[in-house]
Amino acid sequence: MKLTQNIILKFATVALVFTMYSCKKETNAVSKNNATTQTDQAHPKLILTAQGVKDIRAQLGDIPIFDATLEAVKEEIDAEIALGIDTPIPVDYSGGYTHVRHKRNMIVMQKAGVLYQILDDEKYAKYVKDMLMQYEALYKTLPLHPKTRSYARGKLFWQCLNDSNWLVYVSQAYDCVYNYLSEDERVKLETNLFKPFADHISIDSPQFYQRVHNHSTWGNAAVGMIGLVMGDEELLDRALYGIKGLKLDTKEKDDDGGFLNKDGKAGFLANIEEPFSPDGYYNEGPYYQRYAMYPFLIFAEGLHNVKPELKIFEYKEGVLLKSINTLLNLSDADGDFFPLNDGQKGMSYYTSALVTAVDISYHFGIQDAGLLSIASKQDRVLLDDSGLAVALGIKNGKSEPFNKQSINLSDGPKGTQGGVAILRNDDVELVFKYAAQGSSHGHYDKLSYSLYEKGEEVIQDYGLARFVNIEQKGGGNYLKENKTWAKQTIAHNTVTQNETSHFNAKYEIGSKHHSVLNYFSSENQNVQVASAKEVNAYPGTEMLRTMAIIKDEDFEKPYVLDIMKVTSDKANKYDFPYYFLGQVVQTNFKYSVPKVLTALGDKNGYQHLFVEGTAKASSDNSKLSWLNKGKFYTLTSVTNDKDQLLFTRIGANDPEFNLRREAALMLRRKDSKNTIFVSTIEAHGSYSPVTESAINSNSNIKELKVVLDSADYTAVQITNIKGKVKLFITSNEEDSKKVKHNVKINDKNYEWSGSYYFE
Amino acid sequence: MKLTQNIILKFATVALVFTMYSCKKETNAVSKNNATTQTDQAHPKLILTAQGVKDIRAQLGDIPIFDATLEAVKEEIDAEIALGIDTPIPVDYSGGYTHVRHKRNMIVMQKAGVLYQILDDEKYAKYVKDMLMQYEALYKTLPLHPKTRSYARGKLFWQCLNDSNWLVYVSQAYDCVYNYLSEDERVKLETNLFKPFADHISIDSPQFYQRVHNHSTWGNAAVGMIGLVMGDEELLDRALYGIKGLKLDTKEKDDDGGFLNKDGKAGFLANIEEPFSPDGYYNEGPYYQRYAMYPFLIFAEGLHNVKPELKIFEYKEGVLLKSINTLLNLSDADGDFFPLNDGQKGMSYYTSALVTAVDISYHFGIQDAGLLSIASKQDRVLLDDSGLAVALGIKNGKSEPFNKQSINLSDGPKGTQGGVAILRNDDVELVFKYAAQGSSHGHYDKLSYSLYEKGEEVIQDYGLARFVNIEQKGGGNYLKENKTWAKQTIAHNTVTQNETSHFNAKYEIGSKHHSVLNYFSSENQNVQVASAKEVNAYPGTEMLRTMAIIKDEDFEKPYVLDIMKVTSDKANKYDFPYYFLGQVVQTNFKYSVPKVLTALGDKNGYQHLFVEGTAKASSDNSKLSWLNKGKFYTLTSVTNDKDQLLFTRIGANDPEFNLRREAALMLRRKDSKNTIFVSTIEAHGSYSPVTESAINSNSNIKELKVVLDSADYTAVQITNIKGKVKLFITSNEEDSKKVKHNVKINDKNYEWSGSYYFE
Repeated sequence: MKLTQNIILKFATVALVFTMYSCKKETNAVSKNNATTQTDQAHPKLILTAQGVKDIRAQLGDIPIFDATLEAVKEEIDAEIALGIDTPIPVDYSGGYTHVRHKRNMIVMQKAGVLYQILDDEKYAKYVKDMLMQYEALYKTLPLHPKTRSYARGKLFWQCLNDSNWLVYVSQAYDCVYNYLSEDERVKLETNLFKPFADHISIDSPQFYQRVHNHSTWGNAAVGMIGLVMGDEELLDRALYGIKGLKLDTKEKDDDGGFLNKDGKAGFLANIEEPFSPDGYYNEGPYYQRYAMYPFLIFAEGLHNVKPELKIFEYKEGVLLKSINTLLNLSDADGDFFPLNDGQKGMSYYTSALVTAVDISYHFGIQDAGLLSIASKQDRVLLDDSGLAVALGIKNGKSEPFNKQSINLSDGPKGTQGGVAILRNDDVELVFKYAAQGSSHGHYDKLSYSLYEKGEEVIQDYGLARFVNIEQKGGGNYLKENKTWAKQTIAHNTVTQNETSHFNAKYEIGSKHHSVLNYFSSENQNVQVASAKEVNAYPGTEMLRTMAIIKDEDFEKPYVLDIMKVTSDKANKYDFPYYFLGQVVQTNFKYSVPKVLTALGDKNGYQHLFVEGTAKASSDNSKLSWLNKGKFYTLTSVTNDKDQLLFTRIGANDPEFNLRREAALMLRRKDSKNTIFVSTIEAHGSYSPVTESAINSNSNIKELKVVLDSADYTAVQITNIKGKVKLFITSNEEDSKKVKHNVKINDKNYEWSGSYYFE
Repeated sequence: MKLTQNIILKFATVALVFTMYSCKKETNAVSKNNATTQTDQAHPKLILTAQGVKDIRAQLGDIPIFDATLEAVKEEIDAEIALGIDTPIPVDYSGGYTHVRHKRNMIVMQKAGVLYQILDDEKYAKYVKDMLMQYEALYKTLPLHPKTRSYARGKLFWQCLNDSNWLVYVSQAYDCVYNYLSEDERVKLETNLFKPFADHISIDSPQFYQRVHNHSTWGNAAVGMIGLVMGDEELLDRALYGIKGLKLDTKEKDDDGGFLNKDGKAGFLANIEEPFSPDGYYNEGPYYQRYAMYPFLIFAEGLHNVKPELKIFEYKEGVLLKSINTLLNLSDADGDFFPLNDGQKGMSYYTSALVTAVDISYHFGIQDAGLLSIASKQDRVLLDDSGLAVALGIKNGKSEPFNKQSINLSDGPKGTQGGVAILRNDDVELVFKYAAQGSSHGHYDKLSYSLYEKGEEVIQDYGLARFVNIEQKGGGNYLKENKTWAKQTIAHNTVTQNETSHFNAKYEIGSKHHSVLNYFSSENQNVQVASAKEVNAYPGTEMLRTMAIIKDEDFEKPYVLDIMKVTSDKANKYDFPYYFLGQVVQTNFKYSVPKVLTALGDKNGYQHLFVEGTAKASSDNSKLSWLNKGKFYTLTSVTNDKDQLLFTRIGANDPEFNLRREAALMLRRKDSKNTIFVSTIEAHGSYSPVTESAINSNSNIKELKVVLDSADYTAVQITNIKGKVKLFITSNEEDSKKVKHNVKINDKNYEWSGSYYFE
């Protein structure tokens, strides 16, 4: 009777949305009933499998990392059970009590379900059942969430995104206790909770669901996973291909300024197709890839288990598993993801989503032994078949180091929209971004870079302006400074022309363009180079940046060579900042500090920079040395005496202390048409406050000189303090690595094949 | 012949200094000759002993931490030997090549000497001999060091202090190779190198040597140690008691503004007597105590070995060994010393001086098992008898945790000049300073404090303004900002009256006074309290500060209660800063941020503070929450609506970026005569960028209220968010802990014995 009632209610709701839905509804009712009878014995089948449970039980007690994870989860869930169940009426934004509680509940249910299967202890099944029944009672009473800020409000949470998170986890819990429940209980839950829940985040919220966007991926996975458990083919279909027949306005935008659905694509497969490049680079960057990975992989695992015929892990040439390797490569030496675009610093491969990713990649991929060493660092595994495989691998001593090397990652669905190059040598890592816009989370920073040593930032990318889930800071959401500062070009280590951001910081324009690779070369262990061009950021201006990490026996550590060639059809003002972190140690130029700090400008991010010092640059090389976390660094930049140098500090016009007070040295060159910025950054020496000894605290470079700069070639001569001279020539129009080059510099002929010359 | 020649030369020099010296010289020549014949067989005897060497050799290979240290030292010294010997002509300040090389040579010789003894391998002895002979050849040609900045220039180094460091180490090396050298070689070294070296740092530099100061301690130890090795009683006498008959001008000052020799005391024993309180607190603070410890202890060890009849470790009731325990207690949870007065942050018990201290304390003290756990963390031991004892203790599993608890340390030679109290509860540590001036390294910060959680600074003490040994930053020496900022009262967490520092920042006045303990109470595990009074910092104004760490079951972590009662004979302006570290999360008051940053004042440290925000305080409680390194903190302060709140940032008028850009919230109260500042600081919750969950991010305090403030008592009522009320009453004029108190508040009688009431 309840079922009928619910269908009638649903019909009423649905009629308000669009008429096609009523046809679907009937299909669904049928398939669900079929499923219920067919699959009673097959559960669990989604993530844990019946066979997997048998294998795990057989090995328990003899698989250390699995046993330890299980013990920790058991402790955690036993404590939760002791606390009792709370399913409060939703009222809060992220960080508030009801938000946190419902978020916690989804995790707790998923874990309790797993414990029931592995430990075969009914107390966990009962706990899941009791909580589900409370949700069933609650959910059917719920209107839209009272907080109105989201473009797609949920019911349990203020945004459908969080509702979807919940269903992704709870589907797993439901699968685990499926056989424990009576058919009546299942019907009750499916009819009053799961089905309407899935409908709300999809059919009722197409602006959220029917997109290519990380939000939609969660939505698709949620609908698909509950569909797999319920055996509901219609839900599965909706998950894989989107809401059939529904077209959204292609010009509408979401909260972040991204288009809702520019191309009309939707569904899980489209969400794999679009954002991942063939190299497995996710267009929004690693922070959002990490967030999106969980639904991608957990739903894929479910599909693999329940619908093996879909061959989901082979889809788009195996891009899902490939993307995990890519994501791991987008982390620094400590495992922290590079904060490209909107990325919160400190997010790392220690996050639980990456435990999922690493375990699934190991189990369903090629059993890469390097993944085992990361799993060991994570110190926990999934409590499922893949976690068992990892635990056995570690136990059997198969673990090997995960070696990150220089890598070039293409961007765009077909890999033709620029990319991200990571140069690595010893402890030095340079991340060079020449990608496409990166969807609504993209920053306006073509040809920008950040630099790391041993996992510590040397030249930083600011990341996002947000304190995720800290409710007191703007509800834990994006702060307005994300737009006014973090996304602007001047917040990044690249060229800003005439104090305006790339593409005028307009998403519509930026999302049409991408930079283009000139060349990437990592064959020579000692010279790793990436070179790329951007011609659209400022119409009429071309920027070609070539960045190298060079290991030279006369230097203590590898150093960075940075050549930014700017060609324009008119004279401009160029600003070229270096966001160094740490304490100024020395400069070779005289600077003066103002009595009063004023903002450098009034818009495009400049309004957030205080000027702390000003100088006329040196006529040949301007040098700045600084000390950060016990290491010395020196920037040497080719300058002329018309160049200005500015010490800036972030924090002007920041009425709520949302920004970090961090420094930069900015090179400003006015009235220039074509110009070139050349610099080196050396990491050198160390300082310990315990021994109080300063080792190798001075630059090893005597002179940096541009000896040729033509349309075809740029040549830079590097003289060290002992007088040894090295020459780097880069090809500015590289067609093929095979081509022979020949160039005369100061009456000497240089001939080589390949993209650059260094000797 | 050489000896005679040298004596004649010396006489010539000495005649220029003062006539009494000629008498001494003869005594010395005699005693040295005696020694040379008497003690040939007894070496090594200073630090390593002949018996110790036997014991070590017998145990080698079976004492892990000792074996590992030995192996590391062997590797280090073998590498140095391979590089060859360099004894350059001295030209540089600290951090420069010749400085660093000579400093390195002294360490290398000391270690090579030890290796020779333990490994019985002549290559090490030869290396020491060759280097000593180079020094002999060099030293006799040297004029004063060419750099003129020091009040007492050395010959190898720019200051006698470093020359003394050198001799302290090289004495040990000489002792180790003594028997390896021929008598002729010894005579040559003693005549041309050691004796004139000892004379230069003492007789030729009385302004350095003849004082009670850490510099002099090094000088005394250097002279005494070489005297012990040479068997030169006159040198030993000079070391223990100072240069006989010499009186210095008691009004002269050194580079740091300290008096050269106010009381006319000198010599090693006076240097133990004066700066150490009976509790083992060293008047300059832990950073300098750490520096001074090495010569104190290494010379004491030598004295103990060669002159046991002096009973040096029992001197002044065993204060030397007691001071080691005190110094360890003056470190935070990570072992970093609290930066009281001039202290460079990051200096910790991992410094080699503390390896010496811990090992000597264990061996010559009561074999405290807690010291073994620190030795284990240090992961190395002295390669001598005491290091052997520690290594055996660790090997035999005797190690126990070194438990740091709340402790009150008196200051002053007799323990009557105020002190330092450290309150500890769980992970929270509060350092409350009510000491004397702290010699020339003292800061003007009576009744100031700093706060730590798990070794991280919560409310910081700025420390010194200096980059020790980083040559580019002012030669590695004190920067002018040390005086203009770091020493000023406003740089500290205490009251500044009328924008002037305590004692007007005048050393002559400050060094006459000290604060006075009201009471210290650590009997109750849950309530640890220190209370002290200062009546001289501002004539006519009395400050009584009572600080408590309270552990309350309704709070997640222990919190700080801070009561500063100010009584004055006139109306003043009081500034009360909180140097919090981290990001502002929330305030309960509205503030505005200026467009342009200007300095708060023009002198007494105020010229270094930019004003970043201003507010009118709340009429009852003003609250600030912040986030630092993944933890939340909240300051709740009793304010009235005439109070001003200022967000400040260090860094104004800092033309060479010598200061760190760190923040404070400053409470400003104008036109007040008698007033009281009451606040709590809660540590609560956590935030992880990996899980992105913010736990317990809000204050647990609803209201903080002063319910009584009389000459005798102050009572503060703390109401938590659940409405539970606690009352803290402190006795403002405490005579004895036994006394019975009785006070009526809001018609209720409170009766208790002891210094405070809490319930």
